[in-house]
Amino acid sequence: MAQKNRSIEVTQVTQWEDGTADRVVDYLAAEEPLEMRSGRFSLGITLRTPGDDEELVAGFLFTEGIISRREDLVALRMPSNTDAARNLVRVTLNSNLRLAANSAARRFSAGSACGVCGKASITQLRRRGLRRPKAATLFDPEMLCKLPPRLRETQTVFRRTGGLHAAALFSVTGELLVLREDIGRHNAVDKVIGWAFLGGCLPLDGHVLLVSGRGGFEIVQKTITAGIPLLASVSAPSGLAVQLARELGLTLVGFLRGRRFVIYSCEERIAVSASAPVGVF
Amino acid sequence: MAQKNRSIEVTQVTQWEDGTADRVVDYLAAEEPLEMRSGRFSLGITLRTPGDDEELVAGFLFTEGIISRREDLVALRMPSNTDAARNLVRVTLNSNLRLAANSAARRFSAGSACGVCGKASITQLRRRGLRRPKAATLFDPEMLCKLPPRLRETQTVFRRTGGLHAAALFSVTGELLVLREDIGRHNAVDKVIGWAFLGGCLPLDGHVLLVSGRGGFEIVQKTITAGIPLLASVSAPSGLAVQLARELGLTLVGFLRGRRFVIYSCEERIAVSASAPVGVF
Repeated sequence: MAQKNRSIEVTQVTQWEDGTADRVVDYLAAEEPLEMRSGRFSLGITLRTPGDDEELVAGFLFTEGIISRREDLVALRMPSNTDAARNLVRVTLNSNLRLAANSAARRFSAGSACGVCGKASITQLRRRGLRRPKAATLFDPEMLCKLPPRLRETQTVFRRTGGLHAAALFSVTGELLVLREDIGRHNAVDKVIGWAFLGGCLPLDGHVLLVSGRGGFEIVQKTITAGIPLLASVSAPSGLAVQLARELGLTLVGFLRGRRFVIYSCEERIAVSASAPVGVF
Repeated sequence: MAQKNRSIEVTQVTQWEDGTADRVVDYLAAEEPLEMRSGRFSLGITLRTPGDDEELVAGFLFTEGIISRREDLVALRMPSNTDAARNLVRVTLNSNLRLAANSAARRFSAGSACGVCGKASITQLRRRGLRRPKAATLFDPEMLCKLPPRLRETQTVFRRTGGLHAAALFSVTGELLVLREDIGRHNAVDKVIGWAFLGGCLPLDGHVLLVSGRGGFEIVQKTITAGIPLLASVSAPSGLAVQLARELGLTLVGFLRGRRFVIYSCEERIAVSASAPVGVF
């Protein structure tokens, strides 16, 4: 697939090790701007790793609240494969949505796929009508511990470049459904959710989203939008991410490494029982 | 300092380890929106870790090309310490600049501190007149290897929360001049450069900037704006970051770990001599 190859660039570098320098060939994760347009209107530009662009755009439009149902998105089209146009996606929205999309576009033009600016308050997200993910599923801690090794062994671009974030969706039994990589953590999440959106699999009750980096505010927001009840990361969440997860009922797990993890919110979805009294961490 | 304390939040979490769950107290890196205003005009909003906000704003305005000299920035003021206003910085620009700032603000409202959107092409940066950092300084590889341990041992907030990026400025002899932490990698860099800007130390010829995360496109752009000749990171750069570094003459070092690193561009500033012919990495 031509598109996949664009995720990696080959270049010459100098490697220094213990006093010796060698000129060697190295692989880099690609990073190119992608512009989203609806008619003559620019919906925004984001830097992303080329590949799965349609999923990225669908996921972005959905997790940012521009579209909410599969039928809102009439078409996604990359105009051509020439250099000039390969970083452009043309979006056709349901005509009833067009006006709303345009005003929303103005809002998120202050944030683009970075996802953080212009919507930084939880109040704003509440106004968007984000719903608490369903509480029905109980997740097994032993299953959670198996996810990070599975993520790492499936990260093909990371293995060659060492430079990509990953997001992966797992079933309640730990089965890997989809993994996407991108130079931007939020883009990797948008690609996974866009995959589910285009496949008509939303909301994602009973699933786990695992991200390779930090579980920040915008990742929590995107996860809740997709109805995913459990977000796990190998690293630390921020204070605002924890606050949002608690207020909107997402189970947030951090520092998932080896046979240890930390639950920051809604622990009733994980099959553990708290034993000891409060101590110092 | 009250402001420093706002970088860390304390909360209760559940820690699961090898089948046992305990309720413990944990520390989180804080993340709050910060709005920059010039008169009645909003220059943008960014999510950041509270602390060193004036440096963040000064560095942001400078590295985004809104201001270019110390005298362009007349005043920076946090209106009050109340909850509602502590996330607002009022900026007074030199009156000659005001118009330019407003038009620039419109441009970067499509990117904010995320730094990636709306200025994604190298051509655009060239038009801004970014200059090649001076070539005069020669850096010692052994000095470079000592920087990551020094960064880590100085990261006070990271040590408690595990959740922050860091950027640090070192002299050519490896002396640490300033270290700043933030939930956003680009914010940590803006705080360091803002520190130098406010102190009248720019351009930073003969210095090294070390970042804890990835050396991405926007970090390269900010580094060059400050006149820093060498950017080092412990992780991988992207393809676009390498391209920009090569075109604008920045020495870019990645995977700086232990006694090994990779030079992606302008290796003439590092005291190594390439020996072996090209092989596979």
